[in-house]
Amino acid sequence: MLTNADVDHVAGLLTLRERQAFNLYATARVLQVLESNTIFNVLDSRLVERISLPTDVRTGIVDTNGHSLGLEVDAFPIPGKIALYLEDPHSENMGSVDQDTIGIQVTDSTGGGRFFYLPGCASMPKELGERLKNAELVLMDGTTWIDDEMSQQGVGEKTARRMGHMAISGDSGTIRAFKDLNVARKVFVHINNTNPVLNEGSDEYKATLKAGWTVATDGLELTV
Amino acid sequence: MLTNADVDHVAGLLTLRERQAFNLYATARVLQVLESNTIFNVLDSRLVERISLPTDVRTGIVDTNGHSLGLEVDAFPIPGKIALYLEDPHSENMGSVDQDTIGIQVTDSTGGGRFFYLPGCASMPKELGERLKNAELVLMDGTTWIDDEMSQQGVGEKTARRMGHMAISGDSGTIRAFKDLNVARKVFVHINNTNPVLNEGSDEYKATLKAGWTVATDGLELTV
Repeated sequence: MLTNADVDHVAGLLTLRERQAFNLYATARVLQVLESNTIFNVLDSRLVERISLPTDVRTGIVDTNGHSLGLEVDAFPIPGKIALYLEDPHSENMGSVDQDTIGIQVTDSTGGGRFFYLPGCASMPKELGERLKNAELVLMDGTTWIDDEMSQQGVGEKTARRMGHMAISGDSGTIRAFKDLNVARKVFVHINNTNPVLNEGSDEYKATLKAGWTVATDGLELTV
Repeated sequence: MLTNADVDHVAGLLTLRERQAFNLYATARVLQVLESNTIFNVLDSRLVERISLPTDVRTGIVDTNGHSLGLEVDAFPIPGKIALYLEDPHSENMGSVDQDTIGIQVTDSTGGGRFFYLPGCASMPKELGERLKNAELVLMDGTTWIDDEMSQQGVGEKTARRMGHMAISGDSGTIRAFKDLNVARKVFVHINNTNPVLNEGSDEYKATLKAGWTVATDGLELTV
């Protein structure tokens, strides 16, 4: 399941080309990006079914035989960005097209728990906050600590906002945005290599934990 | 330096997108494939110069400051294939376009040795054999052992030939084709995971060594 078409989300499809059968879920908008790019023809259409994921309805997820996986997904558009490589350098419009980026809620349809997954999220409008309120678990965009982190470290010019991400810290940051949402477990994912929260000795890491957040690590397992 | 545009050659460019400066050499034909695919826009054109590599002349290789690397390359068209993902399923023409696939000879312009690199090669016409004759070192397409290896192992339908590769064994295979070329060191590279030469206990591995070939391994270092 792809939550947008940016290269860090879709490049892995190229390593799934060795005749492995799976279902690929994404919005019609993201599927159109894949469809219009010949390189994704490496996914054999007889083995990989591309399934359009509607937003704002609940979708039962099935395996390649059409059998239920016991999971249901609610996909919903969130503030994001057109994939950076699709930007028209001659256009002023660098904004998001509807369904460029989604968040998802995954529910165990056999009666278990549920969680939210939003690896890219450009801002937190009120209705998104309402949706996340009182959630048991949210995996959230933790790309950068501050908005201009990449330029401060001399590794890029784009701000987090410019790339479709909220920063973790600050008045318009993620920690502040979640302050009153009463989410039981909050985990940062999609963390850029410039982000000081990856350093467990840093003040930023300690501040993140103190604010009630977990910083995801390779191999992390979560149960709901 | 790309010797063709197939996905196993170009997908790695997506992991070189983190603002690393380098020069990208390829034929005009392969550069056109990259140019026409927006996903390669992740390579910032201010950092990555795409340099057209002419065939059948010697080209001095330079770093990103235009300084010589002390290496010269002779690129030459060889039998190959249009990248599989670029095939038109409605066309009968699955053959190669000129410059889809090249071999290269790399020469130490400070007076050292030279070697050939041909990771994809669909057949060995007489003029290619003449070019390789008496070479000190050739790194050669070792994709499959037999032509229909993928279908025999139930992991694919395409033959080696269909993918633009010679098989190692057999009357039209690579070992036979090199038999009278008097190449001092012959190394198989670009070996598919179905190829039994990867198993050092196999008869095919032993036959390959007996025929005077080396099977490349990760970390292999060669000096010319």
